[in-house]
Amino acid sequence: MKHYERIPFHQVQITGGFWQTRQQINRETTVQAVYNRFSDTHRFEALACQWHEGMPNRPHIFWDSDVAKWMEGVAYLLQEKRDEHLEKLVDHAVEDIIRNQDELGYFNSHFLVTRQDDRFKIRNDHELYCAGHLMEAACAYHQATGKDAFLNAMIRYADYIYDTFYVYQTAAFTVCGHPEIELALVKLADTTGSAKYLELSKFFVDMRGNNQKDKPIVDDCNLSYDQSHMPLKQQETAEGHSVRALYIYSAMADIAARYQDGEYLSACEKIFDNITQKRMYITGATGSTHIGEAFTVDYDLPNKTAYAETCASIALALFARRMLALKPEAKYADAIERVMYNGALAGVSLDGKSFFYENPLEIDPRFANVNTATQKKQHMPIMQRVEVFGCSCCPPNIIRFIASMADTFYATADDTLYVHQYARSDAQISGAAIHQETAYPSDGSIQLTVSGGTLRRIALRIPGWCRQFELNVPYELKDGYAYADIPSGGMIELKLDMTVQLMESHACVQENAGRVAVTRGPVVYCLEGVDNGECLRSLSVRENSVFEQIDLNLGIPALRTQGVRKTGQQALYARYRSSYEPAQLTFIPYFAYANRGVTEMTVWVHILP
Amino acid sequence: MKHYERIPFHQVQITGGFWQTRQQINRETTVQAVYNRFSDTHRFEALACQWHEGMPNRPHIFWDSDVAKWMEGVAYLLQEKRDEHLEKLVDHAVEDIIRNQDELGYFNSHFLVTRQDDRFKIRNDHELYCAGHLMEAACAYHQATGKDAFLNAMIRYADYIYDTFYVYQTAAFTVCGHPEIELALVKLADTTGSAKYLELSKFFVDMRGNNQKDKPIVDDCNLSYDQSHMPLKQQETAEGHSVRALYIYSAMADIAARYQDGEYLSACEKIFDNITQKRMYITGATGSTHIGEAFTVDYDLPNKTAYAETCASIALALFARRMLALKPEAKYADAIERVMYNGALAGVSLDGKSFFYENPLEIDPRFANVNTATQKKQHMPIMQRVEVFGCSCCPPNIIRFIASMADTFYATADDTLYVHQYARSDAQISGAAIHQETAYPSDGSIQLTVSGGTLRRIALRIPGWCRQFELNVPYELKDGYAYADIPSGGMIELKLDMTVQLMESHACVQENAGRVAVTRGPVVYCLEGVDNGECLRSLSVRENSVFEQIDLNLGIPALRTQGVRKTGQQALYARYRSSYEPAQLTFIPYFAYANRGVTEMTVWVHILP
Repeated sequence: MKHYERIPFHQVQITGGFWQTRQQINRETTVQAVYNRFSDTHRFEALACQWHEGMPNRPHIFWDSDVAKWMEGVAYLLQEKRDEHLEKLVDHAVEDIIRNQDELGYFNSHFLVTRQDDRFKIRNDHELYCAGHLMEAACAYHQATGKDAFLNAMIRYADYIYDTFYVYQTAAFTVCGHPEIELALVKLADTTGSAKYLELSKFFVDMRGNNQKDKPIVDDCNLSYDQSHMPLKQQETAEGHSVRALYIYSAMADIAARYQDGEYLSACEKIFDNITQKRMYITGATGSTHIGEAFTVDYDLPNKTAYAETCASIALALFARRMLALKPEAKYADAIERVMYNGALAGVSLDGKSFFYENPLEIDPRFANVNTATQKKQHMPIMQRVEVFGCSCCPPNIIRFIASMADTFYATADDTLYVHQYARSDAQISGAAIHQETAYPSDGSIQLTVSGGTLRRIALRIPGWCRQFELNVPYELKDGYAYADIPSGGMIELKLDMTVQLMESHACVQENAGRVAVTRGPVVYCLEGVDNGECLRSLSVRENSVFEQIDLNLGIPALRTQGVRKTGQQALYARYRSSYEPAQLTFIPYFAYANRGVTEMTVWVHILP
Repeated sequence: MKHYERIPFHQVQITGGFWQTRQQINRETTVQAVYNRFSDTHRFEALACQWHEGMPNRPHIFWDSDVAKWMEGVAYLLQEKRDEHLEKLVDHAVEDIIRNQDELGYFNSHFLVTRQDDRFKIRNDHELYCAGHLMEAACAYHQATGKDAFLNAMIRYADYIYDTFYVYQTAAFTVCGHPEIELALVKLADTTGSAKYLELSKFFVDMRGNNQKDKPIVDDCNLSYDQSHMPLKQQETAEGHSVRALYIYSAMADIAARYQDGEYLSACEKIFDNITQKRMYITGATGSTHIGEAFTVDYDLPNKTAYAETCASIALALFARRMLALKPEAKYADAIERVMYNGALAGVSLDGKSFFYENPLEIDPRFANVNTATQKKQHMPIMQRVEVFGCSCCPPNIIRFIASMADTFYATADDTLYVHQYARSDAQISGAAIHQETAYPSDGSIQLTVSGGTLRRIALRIPGWCRQFELNVPYELKDGYAYADIPSGGMIELKLDMTVQLMESHACVQENAGRVAVTRGPVVYCLEGVDNGECLRSLSVRENSVFEQIDLNLGIPALRTQGVRKTGQQALYARYRSSYEPAQLTFIPYFAYANRGVTEMTVWVHILP
């Protein structure tokens, strides 16, 4: 099994365009906004472990993970550019963690103060999940700052977990109900060079669904909820809680790569295809139901009740990233790109201050909370982003995802440079200076130069959405990549056709029958009521619609076209008449929805053939 | 306020055609089938009041009402034709009731044995609801058999309720959480000639939403759940539990008629229009959500999760029947007809043995129980009828509705005969013999003769669905009725155009956008997977479709037409192509759905303009 070495984000500088703006917002607004809300909600304070019974703000089981993801995001920002203020905030949190870490290496701000006796007893209580996120943060912080206190503390914790779960197996369960530590341990192994953490990760991955100890994490859950229904190697479909699923699939891919394990690779491939070909929203989001926040069955992709958690979109990118290191096939980079511009990005407001947890593909405020007879309501996604959630995993996940965005851009194998993503950027790889000049995705033209270094070949991703492209050098197409020699001293010019496309779903996706999604390049568009009037379902695009680009200051053009509105009778039921009036339709990129107040929204729009 | 005297069903004999068959099944199969299941489930046994703590099969709060509705249905059958076996079953139940009725007149098989001390204390526990159904049964049984034991027992019970709730007001609540007694008391007043029961009914109607005593019946309900959110006179929209709502609206219409109360009439008119113009499925069903089994908001009519309780459809007919007695407008008879052939009739299987409680307009077994991660499932209607429910109100409601079907056919005012419904039948009204010769609704041709008697004018309903008709006598059209002189000794011939019609919904009914319902006359059709292959959403009818009638032995023709199936890509998402292949589409009457195993079904079908 060949390894396609991912080039880490800090070797790549985004120098302009869409992602530079989004990264600036992430750095200048989001990171502080999330810090403030986490402070208000006592998440940082909890690390001091001063809480005791009778006090308000009892630390929650997953607070450590929220803070850890924020710290990891900050570390990525620091890696790009040191910042005294942010570093102090992290250092303060780290001091609290180290001060309260017990002699065995254990740290958990919930268990230490609320349930000392329950340590490692309850599979559902996110202990190893929190530990994993702390480890990821510690690795990132060490790499960014060179400081080793946090990393050393987490090494001690990992060693304790290694002994408890692997050597002596004295814990009450074998694998944590929420995967995460598995992929964190791989990072810890990489950061420390110590194989024992990889060994422990492999143990956790091997043992999931493969031991007698682990029961369903709560009574009303099935084992598939945390992917424990069968050994991971045998799994072929994406099941259970979608974030948990995509984290453990990511870990499986890591283990497949590190152990050259063909069985894990094969399982990962099958599951990835199952997701992207049968269980994924066009935005890259997953999780078709809020009940269990879970995958369901093939082609079950309801729009209004989509769970489509921001973290699940990010986690699909994490999984795809790892698959790309095993196999340079465009479908993996395509999935990352789909998530980047749609499912993940929709999770944060344009101003960077507020967040969605659920990202439905359709909203109709008229029918969102229609139970008038009872207090009980059907669960529906909220219609406006908020600054913090009770379970606030998504906001800091957005921070670390955007901060490390460029992680997904390049890879190398032998003398070949893989270009997975397009964005205006400079990179230093294998001694070469790589320059991408492009206004992508506003424009499909990309100029690439590779100067110096040992790279001789280049493999350019031709996105799955692209129906036509031009490349100024001879190339060979394989698995969605155009392979070419790097012209010495010359420029590689790739032109991707960005014509607007109307996409349809597989016939089995019920709700989307008779409807299309408008896409341009990797960007999925939507209609909003604020632009298009009430009752978006009465609007249709025509098959031969011509789209005009308009600038609504979203970093990516909005689109305008002439469509039609069904007109006619005002009765509840009346004889069908094929009567339409012209209607100007304004499509905005999906990620920008719900930034102008509560309004109707739909990705899938009726089409008149 | 003029009164349009409804002709009771026993003056009308259905002599052939569709409803004769359905009435036979009702008499020969359904009544015994429901009896058997009610016996198996200890509902009859409960009347003996022998249960005590520690025994299994604790009598439920609504068991009396289930049995009562069955007895009422039997009474209607007996009224048409005495039957010793059935009469014995009722007499046995009546003996138990009388034996256990206490000295005050109280009878309730649940409270007498399980909670003596809670009598008339808990508004939510269906006491007066059960009493009401027992009273309706007693009236019907007295009328059918001339026996008066049951009626006298219920008079004693009504007197006790009159004193407790009206004279001394010693009960812990003012009006019952489940309306029903209000309309029962009107029947009791009619049967006994005693105005005090009408007075009590009016009191209950006046007091709903108009007193300090009554709080929401359970914590998570709003007052609107049982229509107690404001005085009924002020209500303008249909709110809350749909069966409760339609029962109280029926009582309001009764009170409007008996007291010549224009305010109640006006409220009834507004509410009726709100229902039929904004909150009713095309099948006549109501209740858009299982949460509270309730009305929601205008145009919220989801198909797959429709609650659409059989009892609510029947109750809409009860309400419309009463409105017809106040105003001969076709919209009321139209609603009854819509319910007869669709929403109510779907509640019982073709063989008469099993029942639906919920009657969705779309079923896709692939996506019905898709939660694999948890035990908790989204509530979805069941996909096959069953013989009995825990709350088994619908099966006996079907019995009484079908047995008394002809109640809705005729009315008189002065010398005018109103013909509300068409069916092959004979009737004796005002000394006249009325004969309807028709194969309606298989055919739209109706021959009517009126021989003898004092009737001089006739008013024939021209159904709202009918776009063209012919009448062989001069007429004047008013409020959907064709008024004409009765030709002496001659035949009235009405020909209703039964051309298949494609119906569309108001643009605000989200799910139905781009879709039509196929109807012929009053009958709504559906597609089933068993006839049309998988994935009904990929099928479309064309605007100019020609429909051929085929006989599938359903009593009403099925329809066949040439439609199209969307073909194309197998990917989850791909560029839209307007590619279709011809597909023969077989539509069956909606009421006949789910009689051939679990299969996909949809009423609303895509249309290609």
